[in-house]
Amino acid sequence: MKKIINHPEQVVEEMLEGIVSAHPQYVKRVQGFNVLTRAGGPSAKVALVSGGGSGHEPSHGGFVGRGMLDGAVAGAVFTSPTPDQVFEAVKAVDGGKGVLLVIKNYTGDVMNFEMAAEMAEAENIQVEKVVVNDDVAVENSTWTTGRRGIAGTVFVHKLAGAKAEAGGTLAEVKRVAEKVVANVRSMGMALAPCTVPAAGKPSFTLAENEIEIGMGIHGEPGTHREAIRSADEIVDHLMEKILADSPVAAGQEVAVLVNGLGGTPTMELYIVSRKVAQMLAGKGAKTVKTFVGNYMTSLEMAGFSISVLKLDGELKELLLAPADTPAFVQF
Amino acid sequence: MKKIINHPEQVVEEMLEGIVSAHPQYVKRVQGFNVLTRAGGPSAKVALVSGGGSGHEPSHGGFVGRGMLDGAVAGAVFTSPTPDQVFEAVKAVDGGKGVLLVIKNYTGDVMNFEMAAEMAEAENIQVEKVVVNDDVAVENSTWTTGRRGIAGTVFVHKLAGAKAEAGGTLAEVKRVAEKVVANVRSMGMALAPCTVPAAGKPSFTLAENEIEIGMGIHGEPGTHREAIRSADEIVDHLMEKILADSPVAAGQEVAVLVNGLGGTPTMELYIVSRKVAQMLAGKGAKTVKTFVGNYMTSLEMAGFSISVLKLDGELKELLLAPADTPAFVQF
Repeated sequence: MKKIINHPEQVVEEMLEGIVSAHPQYVKRVQGFNVLTRAGGPSAKVALVSGGGSGHEPSHGGFVGRGMLDGAVAGAVFTSPTPDQVFEAVKAVDGGKGVLLVIKNYTGDVMNFEMAAEMAEAENIQVEKVVVNDDVAVENSTWTTGRRGIAGTVFVHKLAGAKAEAGGTLAEVKRVAEKVVANVRSMGMALAPCTVPAAGKPSFTLAENEIEIGMGIHGEPGTHREAIRSADEIVDHLMEKILADSPVAAGQEVAVLVNGLGGTPTMELYIVSRKVAQMLAGKGAKTVKTFVGNYMTSLEMAGFSISVLKLDGELKELLLAPADTPAFVQF
Repeated sequence: MKKIINHPEQVVEEMLEGIVSAHPQYVKRVQGFNVLTRAGGPSAKVALVSGGGSGHEPSHGGFVGRGMLDGAVAGAVFTSPTPDQVFEAVKAVDGGKGVLLVIKNYTGDVMNFEMAAEMAEAENIQVEKVVVNDDVAVENSTWTTGRRGIAGTVFVHKLAGAKAEAGGTLAEVKRVAEKVVANVRSMGMALAPCTVPAAGKPSFTLAENEIEIGMGIHGEPGTHREAIRSADEIVDHLMEKILADSPVAAGQEVAVLVNGLGGTPTMELYIVSRKVAQMLAGKGAKTVKTFVGNYMTSLEMAGFSISVLKLDGELKELLLAPADTPAFVQF
């Protein structure tokens, strides 16, 4: 295992120290917990908490800041954070208007965030939950009942975060988050695996010429393996699956996220993005904004995912609202 | 070779199409050339043009926008753009106040940008040049006389771009760029190579347990190879070299860029950033802002570089000025 780390057991701790020391203007740490909150502390608005296993950086700590998250909880690599950690995040960010938990659909995450919600409610903090399940690749998977939550989650952070920033009530922020979940679909692929530091070896292997379609962000199996094809053919397949599940009519406004899994050259992400744009234009869709880069990674996995979010007037306005966080800044 | 591309000969063309289709609010293409300029066209300010070989994305097209570059020229992968391409960029962005060329110090880049400057001057466009040579690893290298220009170049784009945006004259913008060059130092390392699409195989090989210290962004040899050590030990070595070349006194304000080379997990970049922050704090330096991510990549190379920029009042103000580009947004 060749990694730029100190000790496999220290990666989460040292990463959190790194984020806080790099971005003190944005985030601070809840002492004794793997929780990052906004540097300025809670304010009188609905607060958003997300998180999950580490290894998906900049998710989730990189999205803590104005217009997105108020708190992020970091579990061990690819492992759900424990309920007490989530509970600490909720307590730290609550400004009296309630807290929305944004949960990617993995059995452990859902269970632990739900337990944290119960702990918070016992202390009279209003908590609501939304579960993101944007990955159209497979129904049920390792660690998941139903669809997995992947990079489309970033759109939930962005748009629900904007609604909270604009003074929305907890019910309104939850409604927006659920509307995003209903309208976002994603699918990914991988051409090389990643290695969890504590495991010391790749979580799966692919032959020299082989790729996996529909791979999850923890290396969960996708729909199938095949010999590598052209970028356009791969994108065509992923987009067909996405659009079959959530058809886009002519004139439909959309937002697109072409997400790198950590080891993919930016050049290749733009070659993917080009084909996505062509296909959406071919359907008569109007792409309002496209994001290209590493937003929801899987350590150094090589591959990408595509997320398409269908917009209405409300979602478009929230998409384009300002945000100021370590990893997502928008005027 | 396993890559998400269509044809090795088409990667630059398709990447440029991808950037333009993803970010039409920021950039447009000069028809028939591998040149990106601001979507709004030239304005009555000094214009900045940079560029070089492709494969370093988001450099340089990703930094075209308000407060940074006006034009970016894309050569073939790891190959200098030709003078006629640079000349087209200069013509496209000149708003009558002159153009500053920001050149990374590689023999081909320097020669071709200089020829373009002569072509522009023959058409009565005022052109100035600045050559960035921030890499302290080695004196002279493959393709370079003197030090190489690497990720510190992004600080030149940012600060000189801010000066131009603020209405600085060509001489003033050049002076700022030269001040940044005089005050920025960088050094990198690699733990896995990259493959140029047209070559089809890695440009060098490293043993299972081996890293290269001082590696250039095209795979040029560094100072030496060694068995991998801890992140802290590697950072310690790079920072000692940087600070030996450009000592930082107690109280000195600095900006830091921890740059991923394309295949490095964001988690590891933050582990690096943590140690950089500790070392600078240990010197009594005050870090004004830290940037962590993929800014000047080498396709999918695994590794990172550290850049440290010493600030005075003027440079600090320019560092913190707003910027709005596809890959660098700051309020």
